[in-house]
Amino acid sequence: MRAAVWHNAKDVRVEENWEVKEVTKTDVKIKVAWAGICGSDLHEYLHGPIVIPANAPDALTGDTAPIVMGHEFAGVIDEVGSDVSDFKKGDRVVVNPLYTHGVKPPTLDLYDGFAFAGLASDGGFADYCVIPESMVHKVPEGMTLEEGALVEPMAVTVQALKEADFKFGQTCTVFGAGPIGLCTIIAAKAAGASKIIVFDLSEERLKKATEVGATHVFNSGNVDPVEEVKKIEPEGVDASFEVAGVGVTLNQAIHTAKSRGTVVIVSIFTKGVEIKPMDLTVSGVKITSSLAYEPEVFQRTIDSIAAGALDVKGVITDHIELEAIVTDGFERLSEDKSQAKILVKLSGES
Amino acid sequence: MRAAVWHNAKDVRVEENWEVKEVTKTDVKIKVAWAGICGSDLHEYLHGPIVIPANAPDALTGDTAPIVMGHEFAGVIDEVGSDVSDFKKGDRVVVNPLYTHGVKPPTLDLYDGFAFAGLASDGGFADYCVIPESMVHKVPEGMTLEEGALVEPMAVTVQALKEADFKFGQTCTVFGAGPIGLCTIIAAKAAGASKIIVFDLSEERLKKATEVGATHVFNSGNVDPVEEVKKIEPEGVDASFEVAGVGVTLNQAIHTAKSRGTVVIVSIFTKGVEIKPMDLTVSGVKITSSLAYEPEVFQRTIDSIAAGALDVKGVITDHIELEAIVTDGFERLSEDKSQAKILVKLSGES
Repeated sequence: MRAAVWHNAKDVRVEENWEVKEVTKTDVKIKVAWAGICGSDLHEYLHGPIVIPANAPDALTGDTAPIVMGHEFAGVIDEVGSDVSDFKKGDRVVVNPLYTHGVKPPTLDLYDGFAFAGLASDGGFADYCVIPESMVHKVPEGMTLEEGALVEPMAVTVQALKEADFKFGQTCTVFGAGPIGLCTIIAAKAAGASKIIVFDLSEERLKKATEVGATHVFNSGNVDPVEEVKKIEPEGVDASFEVAGVGVTLNQAIHTAKSRGTVVIVSIFTKGVEIKPMDLTVSGVKITSSLAYEPEVFQRTIDSIAAGALDVKGVITDHIELEAIVTDGFERLSEDKSQAKILVKLSGES
Repeated sequence: MRAAVWHNAKDVRVEENWEVKEVTKTDVKIKVAWAGICGSDLHEYLHGPIVIPANAPDALTGDTAPIVMGHEFAGVIDEVGSDVSDFKKGDRVVVNPLYTHGVKPPTLDLYDGFAFAGLASDGGFADYCVIPESMVHKVPEGMTLEEGALVEPMAVTVQALKEADFKFGQTCTVFGAGPIGLCTIIAAKAAGASKIIVFDLSEERLKKATEVGATHVFNSGNVDPVEEVKKIEPEGVDASFEVAGVGVTLNQAIHTAKSRGTVVIVSIFTKGVEIKPMDLTVSGVKITSSLAYEPEVFQRTIDSIAAGALDVKGVITDHIELEAIVTDGFERLSEDKSQAKILVKLSGES
């Protein structure tokens, strides 16, 4: 089958004859319809291996590179293992790509370590993916497989809202309007945010932010975000979502939150940053973070999309063919800030 | 009357004929019995003015230096204003020295700004203190006025436990065993902590920490605190209290908390510090802080001391005369790490 395979940084090959894994008793084989390109895919392409197990087998999956990328995908069941009873050929499904130890309760489980299908085992940038039944969720009637491919990044931000204990009518700032920033806006809008104030350095991204639900957008290169927020919400916002991953935005997130408000670190920071603990002391602002999603959050994200509560399609900026994943996917995402979520077409079924 | 008056850094004078304020309709005049020296008094003595209004009147009190210091004090009512009905001459009382705007609910009020009697208005290092009735609490039967002078620093740490949402049987680390660190240990013990693991650089302070209830003490100069905690609690502790005010201990506090545990910044940090946001992302550890105390926490602290639940006396290391406050108080506290809470004797009533 066709598969986009990570061999090394800047060496992702679209293979024509990649062998799909054997279907064990508890696996299902999915004919992939659509698969989204994630920021972490891009990082692995540009600077990897970051989490891809290149030199030793992954502790959870046992696999080592080369590995088929893609962890945001949906498709149709093509074959089921002999012990699989909840799925049958023809079912439309989406994959929760998270492998965990599963020893502790879901709120703690992730912190014991985790791995992703599509980074630590063969994923969804391929005609087929064989995956344990336990990682598969049905796509409800009325929800498309394109929407299915967006469940994973949306679940990240639904979890971030949960970490903020975000409530109907509250206000928020979102620092960074890349794909996850846009999903955060969509999630905040769906959660009933009364104000969603968004900052980015790219006018194109800010335009997209407005399209998906931001109530106010500002180019942080031209204004002081803290001053702008004080004009709109003099006491600050209930929750600040840091989705840019740099020190300046983390500090702006702290300074735009109201007394006893919450900063949620959604980004993956690769470096240390300076904060002033006194900023927390004099405001009561808490710093928390989100990491992937709990299984229940993943299911609720599916249900909310199916119910029409989460309007996810606005984050899609293009559809490309698997053969073009490097040029029209990775390379373009690293250059063109107007791109948010690019979906790779496999079967293209809806 | 006698009073220890802050004129400037290194210029605190014990005046013999300081004039006590007039008692307005809603004030009480307290004959001070005991008053504790706080770390912030020491900072004002060494490096002030920090919060003392030296050049312009304080926004809340309207007062300007020179100001009588001392905000941890208890005594006996000597006179009451004509509208005062809840107190009478002879009542044993302790002062909550916090002035606030009082516009928002107590959990938010402090973050609108505050001032302290004894820093922004005349306080308790004097024979008498005139203060609004609303800032005075009765000292219950069976509780001494010496204990009354310890309510204020204890309330700071009872609030810190509240911010940690600390529950019976949980575990904690305490970084720093100075006066507030010791009060944190006392509060954690009273709250039913099963393990209280304490770090400091001073053997004398660690000895004191053990005396007041630490279950494990380590000199951070000799061991790696993170490794020591992992030996005792492999998954980390429920709450880490940062009471040292430096970057290294804040990071140790983060690294010794369990997944989804809480770091409470109790210290006043004067500088920025570097943290690694990724440390929060991969652990779910939250950073929060405490600032002074809510009125209800102050009252509960009194009640808990009176009930024998908070055994505060262990934090006292000496009693001195007012005349010796500079030499035996401020100067000694800045040099002698074996000193924790020094009480200044005014009337000396119990």
